Amino acid sequence: MTLITLTTDFGLQDTYVGVMKGVIAGIAPGVPCIDLTHTIPAQDVQSAAYWLWTALPYFPPDSIHLAVVDPGVGTERRALAAQTAWGIVVGPDNGVFSYVWEAAPPRQIVALENPAYRLPAPSATFHGRDVFAPAAAHLARGIPLTEFGPPISDPVKLPAPHLESDEQSLAGAVIAIDHFGNAITSIGRLVWNGGLLRLDPAFGQGQALTLNPARMSVHVAGRDLGLVRHTYADASAGAPLALIGSAGMLEIAVNRGHAVHELGVTLDTPVVLRTSRDEGSGIGDEGSGRLNP
Amino acid sequence: MTLITLTTDFGLQDTYVGVMKGVIAGIAPGVPCIDLTHTIPAQDVQSAAYWLWTALPYFPPDSIHLAVVDPGVGTERRALAAQTAWGIVVGPDNGVFSYVWEAAPPRQIVALENPAYRLPAPSATFHGRDVFAPAAAHLARGIPLTEFGPPISDPVKLPAPHLESDEQSLAGAVIAIDHFGNAITSIGRLVWNGGLLRLDPAFGQGQALTLNPARMSVHVAGRDLGLVRHTYADASAGAPLALIGSAGMLEIAVNRGHAVHELGVTLDTPVVLRTSRDEGSGIGDEGSGRLNP
Amino acid sequence: MTLITLTTDFGLQDTYVGVMKGVIAGIAPGVPCIDLTHTIPAQDVQSAAYWLWTALPYFPPDSIHLAVVDPGVGTERRALAAQTAWGIVVGPDNGVFSYVWEAAPPRQIVALENPAYRLPAPSATFHGRDVFAPAAAHLARGIPLTEFGPPISDPVKLPAPHLESDEQSLAGAVIAIDHFGNAITSIGRLVWNGGLLRLDPAFGQGQALTLNPARMSVHVAGRDLGLVRHTYADASAGAPLALIGSAGMLEIAVNRGHAVHELGVTLDTPVVLRTSRDEGSGIGDEGSGRLNP
Repeated sequence: MTLITLTTDFGLQDTYVGVMKGVIAGIAPGVPCIDLTHTIPAQDVQSAAYWLWTALPYFPPDSIHLAVVDPGVGTERRALAAQTAWGIVVGPDNGVFSYVWEAAPPRQIVALENPAYRLPAPSATFHGRDVFAPAAAHLARGIPLTEFGPPISDPVKLPAPHLESDEQSLAGAVIAIDHFGNAITSIGRLVWNGGLLRLDPAFGQGQALTLNPARMSVHVAGRDLGLVRHTYADASAGAPLALIGSAGMLEIAVNRGHAVHELGVTLDTPVVLRTSRDEGSGIGDEGSGRLNP
Repeated sequence: MTLITLTTDFGLQDTYVGVMKGVIAGIAPGVPCIDLTHTIPAQDVQSAAYWLWTALPYFPPDSIHLAVVDPGVGTERRALAAQTAWGIVVGPDNGVFSYVWEAAPPRQIVALENPAYRLPAPSATFHGRDVFAPAAAHLARGIPLTEFGPPISDPVKLPAPHLESDEQSLAGAVIAIDHFGNAITSIGRLVWNGGLLRLDPAFGQGQALTLNPARMSVHVAGRDLGLVRHTYADASAGAPLALIGSAGMLEIAVNRGHAVHELGVTLDTPVVLRTSRDEGSGIGDEGSGRLNP
Repeated sequence: MTLITLTTDFGLQDTYVGVMKGVIAGIAPGVPCIDLTHTIPAQDVQSAAYWLWTALPYFPPDSIHLAVVDPGVGTERRALAAQTAWGIVVGPDNGVFSYVWEAAPPRQIVALENPAYRLPAPSATFHGRDVFAPAAAHLARGIPLTEFGPPISDPVKLPAPHLESDEQSLAGAVIAIDHFGNAITSIGRLVWNGGLLRLDPAFGQGQALTLNPARMSVHVAGRDLGLVRHTYADASAGAPLALIGSAGMLEIAVNRGHAVHELGVTLDTPVVLRTSRDEGSGIGDEGSGRLNP
């Protein structure tokens, strides 16, 4: 049984999300809907792109993922659906699936133009209800992608988040902030590998590297947070730390606290993982202290 | 398969909504519940009435719609269920379904009095759990409306939102505010019809009119917002505008901004659609400049 | 058909809850998930314990209840699942189920250690996704508790909330605050019994008592709120009152207002139900004015 996930910036105050589920229930009765999030910052396509990228691999691959973060609603921007290895994605053609496609390239993308799979007389302001929810529901019923409209070969893609390395440092930035106030950075994906860390750039911004975390410390907002830790409780209560978050990205946190409030970081704040001055480079192969592209 | 929607002012903080779903799952296993909204302003029956009116037509007509915005819980106010063309509605008899009934008149209304369809020993403070959720669940199981209690012929009805017209203007007020900060007004429903607008009063406050939007401008909070636009992006980023929202009501917005914060509008703020001084009336038949009742 | 409830402090901003549901859908397709609450104050295990205790009895007894309020994630704290008369509970071994177990003692508790029922390579920071959601889903598939790991005989238990009585008074404290700003106290469970109140300590803090509410008044934050009322509307709009809330606990409220803001109460604020000075004791058997253990 397929399911439909919903990701929007509609918030939780209004009935807009419920109405989309009503439209889906009318077209594809019994198909479960799962809310991914509806509190994407208003019209923040990049943030939506990040959260979709973290979440979609955890769903069954026959899922349908509907994302409506759509500042251009009612303009000429296209509506699309695409088949990927992570399921079918449905939403505006504004880059919201860019990071998903980096990891799960689209096999087929179509423009949602066939009026048979929209509500009659779509509004100019609520394509979530009138265009995207009906498309997701008809896809859940098994209507093939090609029925919805002509192929798209040039979908809008967002630039990859900032990630740069030299022999002494890895430089990135805060790309998302979660409910706990943890600041998630563009430095990742990182995986512990014995005492070393392997960096496999998440959004294709370069080649894999090996890091020696014992020689490197994390710098953000004028502070040296020291070594990369394993879990929140590795810092004392109230102390700041850096660790590898659940999506594999370097994350700035305060144990039992709120990093954004307490450290003054925000979206786009630069974050650097830097070799300690007197220890040679921590970036390299086998922890030798050199870059290892 | 029927479904149950839930609309409350319980907020998203507590377990109250989850508990109602637990009660429903115990009585009617497998019946899906869809949240419409739980952030109706506390005890704001009129706001709930508006949002129900916008949402219910998008659900399958065999749905059951449960609304618990109930400042009179534990008093003598009645509990009711009613059959309409938009499904069965269940809630307190305090006017919360007034606007639904304007569009989908109740065919049968009963008082929820039969103790067989309540939880044992209902509390005085949480009829959502003890009275309304069990009623919705038993209705979903197919128990006929007449089993629940005696008929009600005089349900509480709210007055219609303010909407007044003369030869030069249409006057209404803000009746709801959404998550984006868009202010929804009582001026509607409006439908584009060629270059003209057709006004079909949403809550029975008068007769249909034809408007010539090219001759009229929207006035709110001391500002002239100019012509009615088609979509948010018809204004530059940060600029205020008026457009027809997704429920067909005239809506005050700021493109990529928050109208309530930036224009200082709030619930009940007057909004006027007025003929420009030197152009004759924009209200009339075939755009002639006259009222056309 | 079993169902899974979810209680976390993950908030509603992120995709973390949706991802847990994705994991569940992959392992146990079609099993419905019901959100109890995701806005437990961050890492507030006691508050979660209270809300679980109020909610679980309203669910079918074959339900699975997943609670992830887990300040110790990634440390040596154990993960557990336990069979109770209120269903199976799944979560960290940090006391979050203490109050549930007071009412529905665990028949069997196991440590979640079997890697076959976790995601591969669990992270150190998100056991909700990697450990607890998979466990709940496999339990929903019918995998027996004993397959998950060795028995636990010494689960962590929280102390019971403060509740003390003498011949003249019952003393407790605010233990939870709901969305309406109502302050729920540790004085309960109370049940009306004719004109008297029966107190049956909710968390085993003593023996049952009979109270004569006509002789007693409620004191909090320097105010005398007078008699215990039956429902919110027993006070005039804007007036403070004490009543028995929907979980049977004495509750401090303001009719159509917000007790926390207007009375200055907060978590742990002392609340006393005290015999009026000149009337003898209101605590006793048959309203005689004496304690009646």
